[in-house]
Formats: sequence, structure tokens, C-alpha cells
Amino acid sequence: MKVRKRANILVKACAILLAAAAQATAGPTALPVLSKQSKACIACHKQTSPGIFEQWGGSRHYRANVGCYECHRAEKGEPDAFEHYDATIAIIVSPKDCSRCHPNEVAEFGASHHSKAARILGSLDNRLAEVVEGNRGMVTEGFPQGVSASAVSGCWQCHGSVIKVLDEGQLDPATWPNTGIGRINPDGSEGSCSACHARHAFSVAQARQPDNCGRCHMGPDHPQKEIYYESKHGIAYLAHKDELNMDRPKWVVGEDYHSAPTCATCHMSATKDQPVTHDVGMRISWNNRPVISIRPEVADARMGLPGKNVSWEKRRDNMQNVCLNCHNSQWVDNFYVQYDALIALYHEKFARPGLELMKLAKPLLRPVAFGNKLDFIWFELWHHEGRRARHGASMMGPDYTHWHGMYEVAKQFYTEMVPELEALIEKGKSSGDPVKKQAAEALAAKLSEVLNSPNHRWYLNKMDPAEAERRKEAAKKFKARYK
Amino acid sequence: MKVRKRANILVKACAILLAAAAQATAGPTALPVLSKQSKACIACHKQTSPGIFEQWGGSRHYRANVGCYECHRAEKGEPDAFEHYDATIAIIVSPKDCSRCHPNEVAEFGASHHSKAARILGSLDNRLAEVVEGNRGMVTEGFPQGVSASAVSGCWQCHGSVIKVLDEGQLDPATWPNTGIGRINPDGSEGSCSACHARHAFSVAQARQPDNCGRCHMGPDHPQKEIYYESKHGIAYLAHKDELNMDRPKWVVGEDYHSAPTCATCHMSATKDQPVTHDVGMRISWNNRPVISIRPEVADARMGLPGKNVSWEKRRDNMQNVCLNCHNSQWVDNFYVQYDALIALYHEKFARPGLELMKLAKPLLRPVAFGNKLDFIWFELWHHEGRRARHGASMMGPDYTHWHGMYEVAKQFYTEMVPELEALIEKGKSSGDPVKKQAAEALAAKLSEVLNSPNHRWYLNKMDPAEAERRKEAAKKFKARYK
Amino acid sequence: MKVRKRANILVKACAILLAAAAQATAGPTALPVLSKQSKACIACHKQTSPGIFEQWGGSRHYRANVGCYECHRAEKGEPDAFEHYDATIAIIVSPKDCSRCHPNEVAEFGASHHSKAARILGSLDNRLAEVVEGNRGMVTEGFPQGVSASAVSGCWQCHGSVIKVLDEGQLDPATWPNTGIGRINPDGSEGSCSACHARHAFSVAQARQPDNCGRCHMGPDHPQKEIYYESKHGIAYLAHKDELNMDRPKWVVGEDYHSAPTCATCHMSATKDQPVTHDVGMRISWNNRPVISIRPEVADARMGLPGKNVSWEKRRDNMQNVCLNCHNSQWVDNFYVQYDALIALYHEKFARPGLELMKLAKPLLRPVAFGNKLDFIWFELWHHEGRRARHGASMMGPDYTHWHGMYEVAKQFYTEMVPELEALIEKGKSSGDPVKKQAAEALAAKLSEVLNSPNHRWYLNKMDPAEAERRKEAAKKFKARYK
Repeated sequence: MKVRKRANILVKACAILLAAAAQATAGPTALPVLSKQSKACIACHKQTSPGIFEQWGGSRHYRANVGCYECHRAEKGEPDAFEHYDATIAIIVSPKDCSRCHPNEVAEFGASHHSKAARILGSLDNRLAEVVEGNRGMVTEGFPQGVSASAVSGCWQCHGSVIKVLDEGQLDPATWPNTGIGRINPDGSEGSCSACHARHAFSVAQARQPDNCGRCHMGPDHPQKEIYYESKHGIAYLAHKDELNMDRPKWVVGEDYHSAPTCATCHMSATKDQPVTHDVGMRISWNNRPVISIRPEVADARMGLPGKNVSWEKRRDNMQNVCLNCHNSQWVDNFYVQYDALIALYHEKFARPGLELMKLAKPLLRPVAFGNKLDFIWFELWHHEGRRARHGASMMGPDYTHWHGMYEVAKQFYTEMVPELEALIEKGKSSGDPVKKQAAEALAAKLSEVLNSPNHRWYLNKMDPAEAERRKEAAKKFKARYK
Repeated sequence: MKVRKRANILVKACAILLAAAAQATAGPTALPVLSKQSKACIACHKQTSPGIFEQWGGSRHYRANVGCYECHRAEKGEPDAFEHYDATIAIIVSPKDCSRCHPNEVAEFGASHHSKAARILGSLDNRLAEVVEGNRGMVTEGFPQGVSASAVSGCWQCHGSVIKVLDEGQLDPATWPNTGIGRINPDGSEGSCSACHARHAFSVAQARQPDNCGRCHMGPDHPQKEIYYESKHGIAYLAHKDELNMDRPKWVVGEDYHSAPTCATCHMSATKDQPVTHDVGMRISWNNRPVISIRPEVADARMGLPGKNVSWEKRRDNMQNVCLNCHNSQWVDNFYVQYDALIALYHEKFARPGLELMKLAKPLLRPVAFGNKLDFIWFELWHHEGRRARHGASMMGPDYTHWHGMYEVAKQFYTEMVPELEALIEKGKSSGDPVKKQAAEALAAKLSEVLNSPNHRWYLNKMDPAEAERRKEAAKKFKARYK
Repeated sequence: MKVRKRANILVKACAILLAAAAQATAGPTALPVLSKQSKACIACHKQTSPGIFEQWGGSRHYRANVGCYECHRAEKGEPDAFEHYDATIAIIVSPKDCSRCHPNEVAEFGASHHSKAARILGSLDNRLAEVVEGNRGMVTEGFPQGVSASAVSGCWQCHGSVIKVLDEGQLDPATWPNTGIGRINPDGSEGSCSACHARHAFSVAQARQPDNCGRCHMGPDHPQKEIYYESKHGIAYLAHKDELNMDRPKWVVGEDYHSAPTCATCHMSATKDQPVTHDVGMRISWNNRPVISIRPEVADARMGLPGKNVSWEKRRDNMQNVCLNCHNSQWVDNFYVQYDALIALYHEKFARPGLELMKLAKPLLRPVAFGNKLDFIWFELWHHEGRRARHGASMMGPDYTHWHGMYEVAKQFYTEMVPELEALIEKGKSSGDPVKKQAAEALAAKLSEVLNSPNHRWYLNKMDPAEAERRKEAAKKFKARYK
């Protein structure tokens, strides 16, 4: 006991020193020796969990004498603390725990949308996973009335669960295993550093590789991983991965590497002029999550984040400072003209009219969200396909911009949404209900207005004759020139 | 001739020695010298097929003096034996041939579902590839009445063909090239070792890499490769591939490597407590192939495999023994609670009611399988989307569990299956045929029962008011807590 | 000024020498020293664009004293020339510029379809991206009447833009950044060498890796990258990438590497009998782009390319010469039987009848292309799914042949196309318009003919009883044999 107490004092002293050091310099310093407690952990876990022991053995934590106990130690009385042989520990190492040595990183992360990912989910009615796909069939001690397995193994794994602690520091199985980036931890902190810094190697090279971000940023609704690997950035990465010095503590683009950027390079890592940041929103000039893309400072303001004071122009400057390491200023300026133009096209031709049509269609729909085919049609148009187009343009993946993006948006609009609206109008008009009749007329008027607008009148075979002629001439000229 | 005979005797002696050695020890031993016959093969093939000569030159077979002839030799009278210059050989090296030196591996493989993959295909009416997609337009010597090119270049390439031998050991082009894992060989043996151990390097590192399994385990109906690369296991593999010692003969997780698991690690390879096995079913506790997931011992019993005596609990223990190298027991136990809950959700909400509805719909459908849109809807619900959800949960790929899985299952059910059933009911009820009328009424009653059940009544806007209130309160509380 | 002039003379002399050398030997020779102009470029760009400076620093161009100026230099009066400090330069380095040192490569490339990719796009009415998905909302100096952002960030990024030069060598943002492979450059040349040889490392290893080709050859309509990675070729590449000597100047399959082929190996790179070629069509025996696959010499003739004189048989010989490095001749011959059979199946069962049906349906459709759901159905059947099946078979990716290919083709045909045609017939027959009535009857007759043909009669439950019996027997026999 005496030994443990002394060790505790030692660790606490070190923690204070480390925190002070971290504030004074760029990173934490090492402990002089491995603690007695960590040695005790290792004595068993070397046998019972050799994988994590060896992962740790190859990590920087090992070299700094930061062992099991330094991260997993807890104070008696903490919600998830429990006695394990002679030590008080917790399973979850929260951002608060990590901040003992990495205060800057945790502070940056805490200001980001990433850290609020469970809030975003929780503050919505998570109807899809809980009601439409799910039921309350997963009954656990923490959820006596049941919870949806589709939320547990789906949404929560990326967004983060709200951890529920059972007896003696045990964690409710519906809420853990979970390393969702916005996890709400027993100590009230938000986030999971191991979402990206996977235990127990905590390899910075792994965190910097694009596949790491691809754990969540992939799939039908935000295929950033797929887009990256289609883009020249991804191609260069695959060709030159070994030259990127991805495990360098200082990892400055143009200094430490130059052959290819990863997600981290552009969105997080240091340039000669900018330090690394764990707030991934600081270099993006569009938030493409909603139906209509918004500026990131608007999104930050809605969540009460400090980023509300950082304009999208400033953030775009930040990004361009990265681009300029390998591209000239005309390239960069022109790229942003292309990107903004695609966003504008999506907004003006599909997103804004679509939103208005959906609002007017509401009185004609069955009054239950996702109880109508049209709900799914519209949802996929903006949430899946419209995002793919916007993300594709943002990262120069032409197949995602076009075939997986705008082509699907247009197909969904003309072959699914318009016929579905027409059927609703027909049904509403012929219904005996005067409220429905009126709604149907209003919807019909708007649909007619939309389809007769310059963006859509081609569909009614009403293309401006001058425009049709111009198109014909252009094609003719082109053919003559090259044949 | 004398020389060949002596060499033959030598080879046979060696084969006997090798077989004996293989039974006594962990693996085969080497031959003292390269046979005269193999030297003769090489004399030409070094020039005409330098690629395979060099692949072999980098293989363990080279170091063990196992050359072309040792594997390709055949006895006169074997169905596919032919004379090639002075030697009797066969093109196909079957598992029976490989078992001359690798008897244990072949025995394990022979007990697995993998080795029966062509049987599974052949014992079904392979209607999709042969009738729906295909025709009998591919006429070969072996198929004078024709066979479907869609089966030949599609199904058979993974499941395995039934090899047809033509004159002088030539192989029918509809049946070869083929390395399907359940190929039925001229010697009657089942399987193709080169499905995984690609010729002519036979690299164990290649066999252990996830992409190897991904040759078949990918795509809309069993995207295990894609799920793996979304999971933390795949991310760690990509980051630490070079540290995995993937070409070590002894490849014990936690001893020889610890940074990441591949498919092989969890499903086949050695742990400190388990030897490697070539029966990939020995660590899985659910067979997610059918509409309703079944226990693997049930599937094994149906095929008369020895695994019928190995319970799913034993197999789950086997898998957990792998997990525990890097995860603690609470992690592992909780994971299985999550996995089982997702299977239960899929079963109870969609698979079981879906099956019952399909049975009742049958008299109302055109009496030809895949001749109705509903056939495709239901097939994709369970065979594509329902599997993706189950596989996603089994390997912790949240995007596959949710967006590619349960979301698509629910969308298919509510926006395609239910309307199609309603149309059938409508049509049946208004038909003059009393049998159809009755069937329509039975189907309507069941559909009403399903939609009014707790799992689905939200769709009818009949959510239990208490539940609706609870959901509203929960969302309100959450918002208040974090805003 | 004097210094610049002398340097200019020096560079010109070198260029002449280089060109002469290139014609005499296999490749260009080096310059003796780095030019004064390039030194001047570097003095600034080393600071302002360290990434490209360092990329160049690792390139063969560096070792050959080929610097910034040697490639970017321009003559006054060239359309995109501008003065930059003391030098006349251009941003775009066109194939014409590259041909100063690499005349053979540029000539080969110029004879290929690749170099005509913008022509192909421009000579069609690019209705999808410009009209259906797009609008003329992207107004730039070069497009005062606007252009579609969906073409700019989509189609043009792979096919190539027609570069528009603004004042002082500035490039219109709708047309650049762009490295589309068929880009039409200010100097009139077609193509972009940096489509594949990405600046500024110009790494041959990168150009040879499959992901490089995957920048364009991926996605729903030509998933060659995905098919490659499913195939054994891709699996071997991932396992043995490090042994492939991918940066060897001489890169002869079977000599310099033997473990795996990349796209380049089969389609471009040297064998012992064939030199490398930059005309990627010289080894393919089917052009699978159109609805009905055509022979490449036919496609070449249509574009006036010299390949019109190279028969598909000669091209197939070229490819087989590659295959034979690792496969025997029976393997290769049989593979082509399989490939051709799949093409024939697709043609006969779906493509030809589909084309005829679409022609007859035309008078019944709204007279605006892509203004009918049927337009999208048919387009995806051949352009997306039919291509996937054909490409899948060509590269032995069974999942793409079957699940992503023929299965989707059949599903599209029976569950979308046939019902849509039936609805058109119904509507046409009941219309008052005698022209439509007649058209509907003609379409009905053809549809009936198609569905009653041996390929489709199963759908009408009219399978030949002998065939049905044969199928039943075969399944029974198979079961008996293996159970």
C-alpha cells in the first residue's frame, strides 16, 4: 500500500509536470520510469492480452514510460471507476484523461463538430435507426425498455454512444464497445480519441492515413474515402506512401514530405505557416451536410462553438495555404470557381425547388415521416446523391461528381420525384377533401412553375429554340473541326 | 527410359516419405534434389512461360526441390492424364494431388463448406444464371446442347465448375480456366487449392492478405472485403502491413505479429491455443447465408460434414480465443451481445414476417420464379441487403450494418414490398377466381397483422402514444442537456 | 538579356539534340547542365511551391537537367504564352511540348482513342451533363453565356476540356484545372500527358500502378479498377507490389518482374517480343463501349485513326503474347472462348432485342431524350450494367460479370423495361391517335416475339418441357451424386 501511495504521488507529480510542460512546449515530455502500477498490469496482460501489450511496446507511449495505469487510472467515486486487483481504474480513457498530457489537442478537438457527433444524433429524432429500421428488441441492463440494434451497431459506432455504466465499472453492452468520435463518456467529456488514434499503438502514421478517416467518411452518403482514392491525391498517395515519412513528429507538407497529401495534410496537419489543428472545420469553406450547403461559421454558431467567429473566407485562406505548396495561385483560384459553381448548380436546379415542392407536398402525404415513398426519394436525392456530387467536386473526383452524383440527382428528380408528385396531385385533386384539393392545386402550380423554369423546361420539350439551335451549331462546329 | 523409371521410383519414394513426414510433423519436408522430369520441364518453360518459372523460383517449393513434375505428374489412365514429351502429366493439380505432401491441410479443407461450394450451386436449380440471365448459347465439345456463359464466367468462377475432360487431357473451355474453391476435379476430388494459394508462388503471405478472400467475398451480397476495410481491423492492416511478418511459417497472433488481424487471423490462423485450420467454419457462430441465419452445426449436418458435431458455442469460444489477444473479455462479451441483437432485429422485424408474406403471396404471383418483380424485391431484401446488415454487424463495419444494410432492408420493405403486396391483394380481390380471392384475403389479413404489430405500426401512424411521448421527451431532454 | 538569349540558344540546341537522340535510340538523353532560366524559376518556387520543387527533385527530369523552363517555355505569340519575370512561358505543357524529347510516345498516344476523348465528348450532344443535370449557370470570361458545372467538374475532368485562354496566358476557370486525357490545348494538340504522368515527379512507377488508370476507369459504367482488384491479377499485385520493380526503365514482363501484372503490363508495357506502346487499343479485341460491342478497327476507322488497319485478330495475338508469360496456350485459348461467349450472350439475349424494342417504342415516348423513365432504364441496361458484365468477363472478375453485371441486366430488363413497354403499349392502344395505335401494335408484336423466343419464353412460363425436364433431371442427378 505504501508503495502504491508513493507511486500515486509520483504519477500525480508527473502529470502536473507534464501538463505544465505541454502548455509551455509543443508536446508532452516523458516520465522518468514506468510506474509500479503499470508494471503490475503488464505482469498479467503480457500473457492474457499479448496483442495490446506488443502494440504498446511499439508506441511512443512506451518510450515515454506512459503505461497502462497512466491512462486507465481513475479516482474512487468516478462513475466508471472500479477496483482491479490493487488499482482503481476505468475501462474508458476519455478525452479528459488524454488531456492530462495532451491539453492542446483535446481543446482543439473539443471545439470541433467531430466532438459533438453524438449530440447531433441525439438532438434529432433518430427516426430511421430507431423506428423505421429498428425496434426496441435489444434489452440490456442499461436499457430495460429496449433500444434499437440498428442504432447500436450502426449510427452509434461512428457518432458515438452515451456510455451507460453498470455495477463495478462494467459498461452496458448497448453502449460499449464504442469508439464513435462524439461518444459521451461517463466523466461527461465528449469524444473518443481512439476513434482515430487506435489503441494501443496510437500510431500517428495510422491516424494520418486516409483509410483512418474512411472508417466513417465512406459509403452512399459521404464517400470521401472513395473520392480521395479516385482523385490524383489518392493515386499519388498509393504510389508514394513510403516516401511520406508519415511517422515524423513534425510533419510539415513541403518540408517533411511532398509526394502526396492525405486527408490529414489538407484538413489538419501543419504547413510552414499553420500549426496542426484537431478542429477539422478550420479549413473548409462549405458545410455540405444539409440539403442546402451552409457556411461553416453558421453551423458553428448553431452549436455554440468558437468557430462561429471564424469566417469561411478565413478558412478558405487556410486551405489555400495548403494547396499552394503544390499548386500555383491560378490553379487554386480556378479550382474554387469550379467547386462553387457545382454547389450553385445543385442548389438552384434541384435543392431549392425540391425543398419548396416537398413543403407543398406535405398535406398530401401520409402524416408519418418515412411512411411515404416520396420521403425516401427526397432523402436520397439530397442526403446521398446531392452530397456525393458536392463532395466529389470538393475533392476532384469526377466520377462522384457526375455518375454517382449529379446524374443520380437528375435521375431521381425526373424519374422518381416528379412522377410521385404528379400522382399526389392527381389523387389530391380527385379527393373529396377541399383541404387536399387546395393543397394539390398549390403543389401543381409550383411543379408547373419549376418545370417551366429555364432549368427544367427541356423536360417539357420547351427548350428555348435559340438555345436548341446554339447546341446544334456547337455540336456541328465541333464535329467539323475534328473530323 | 531407364532414367525416367529410376526417377519415377525416386519420386514415389519421396512422396511416401513426404506423406509419412507430414503425418509425423507439422509440415512436409524437402526433396534432396530436383527431379530429372522437372528439369526437363524447366528447360522449355523457362523460355516459353518465364513468369511462372520465376514465380516458382521465389517459392518454398523451389527450396524444397518440388518442381513442375512433382505436382503435375499423373498416372496413365487418369481421366485427364496426357503425354507431354516424355512425361505423363495433367493440367489440373487437385487437392488430392496436393495431399501427397499436405494431407492435413487437405483433410481440414475437405471438411469445410468451402470445398462443397460447387455442390451447393449444383444441387440448387441455378435459375438466375442459367435461365433468367442466361441461355444455352455457349456450345462446346463438353456441352453440345449449350451452357450459360453467365454461369461459366460468373457463378462457377467462385463456386467451382465440374471439370470436363476432352481428348488427350484437354479441358473443356466452359469448365476451365476455373479455380473456384469447390471445383469438382477429374479425379473426383472437390476444391481448388489455387483458389487461395495462387500459382506458382504459393505465397502464404498472399493467402493471408484480406484481398485474397475478397476474390469472392465482396460485392452486393457478401461484401466482407469492403466491411473489413471499413473496420478498425482493416485500417490497422493498411497502416501496419509491413510489420505483420506475413510470410512467417509460424504465424501466431500475439507472438509473430500483433498490429492487425487479417481475415485469416480470425478465421483460420494459429493462436497460442489453437492450431491453424483450413476449415473456415470452425470459429463462426452464425451462418448468415440463408434468409434466416442458422447455426453452423445445422448447416454442416445438412451437408453431412463432421462439423455437425461442433456446436456454435464451441466455435464462438474458438473465435473469442482469437479476440482476447487484443481485447478484454468484457469487450468481447459485449460485442457478441451487439452482434446477436442485430441478427434478432433483422429476423423478427423483416425476415420472418417477410417469409410468411411471401408464402401467402405465392398463389397470387405468376407461377414462374423470378417472373415477378416481387421475387427480385424479396431476394434482394434478404440475399443482398439483409446479409450486408448481418455481415456488417459481425465485423463492425457500421456503414454496412446501417446504410448499406438495415436502411436498405427497411426501404425495400416499406417502399417496394408492401406496395407490391397491396397491389397483389387488390388485383386478387377483384379477380373472378375464388381461389385468388381467398388467397388475397389471407394475404391481406397477414399484411394487416404484420403492419399492426409493434414493429411496424409506426408506418400506419399508430405508434403507441406512450412510446411517441417517450421519444419526444428523450429528444427534448437530450437537447436541453447539450445546448 | 544577353544571358537569356545565350541560354535560349543553348536550350534550342539541346532540344534539337534531344529530338535527334530520341529518334536514334530508345529514349531522350540528358542535358549537360540545368538552364539559367530553370535556375531562376527555382530560386522563387523552391520557397513558394516547395511541394512541386521537391517532386521534381526526385524525378528523372532532375537528373537529366530538364527543369521548369525546359517544359514550360513558350514562344511569344503562342496563344497561352505570357511573360513571367524575364521568361516567356505557358502554364500548360501539352503533348506537343513533351514531344520535343518524347516524340515516339506522343506519336503513339496521338494515334489512340485516349487522345480523342474530348472529341468523342464534344462530337456528341452532351445532353446529360449540359441539359438534364446541368444548366448554364457557370458564367466565366470564356463562357459569357454560361456552361454547365456538371460538365466542368464531371465529364471534362476525364475526357478533357477545350482550354480557353484569357488575357496574358490566364486560363478560363471552366476549362482549367483540367488534366482530362483528351484535353484540347491552346496549341491545338490533343491530350494531356499529365493525365497519367502526374506532375511533377513524372514517376513511371505511379503511371504503371492500376490506381492511375482507375482515375477514370472506375465507377458504375466502366469499373475496370474494381474488377482488377477482384481478379487474381489485382490480388497478386497487392501481395507482391514491392517485387515488381515498377520504376525500372526497362520493364519487361517475365524479365524484370513476374509476380503480377498491372493494367499497364497487359495493355501497354513491353514483353520480350513487343515494345511498350502508348496506344492502349493495340491489344484489345473488343471495344465494349457501345450498346453492341464492336471490333476496335471499326471504331478506329470511324475516327480516322491508323488503327483502322490493325485487325482485332492481330490485337488479340498481341494480348496473348502477354498472357503466355504466365499461362499456357490452352488456358489462354479457353479464356477467350469464355469471354466471347459472354459477349454473345449479352448481345443476343438483351442488347439486340433491346435496341429493336427501343426503336419501336420511340413514337410512343415523349419526344425528348431522357424525358422518359424508359430512357434511363435502357441507358443503364447497356451503358452501366451491360458494360460491367462485359468488362467483368474480359478481366475475370466474376462478381462484376454476374452480380454487378448480368444479374442487373436481367433484373432491369424483366422488372423495369418490360413493364414500362407494356404500359406504353397499353396507353398507345387506348389512345385516339391512329399513329400511336399503330406504333403500339408494332411494339406489342415485337415484344411478344421477343418474349416468346427461346431466350425469354421462360418468363411467360413457356419453357420447353423437354428443357424443363432436363433441368430437373440434372439437378436430381447432381444431388444424388453428392449426397
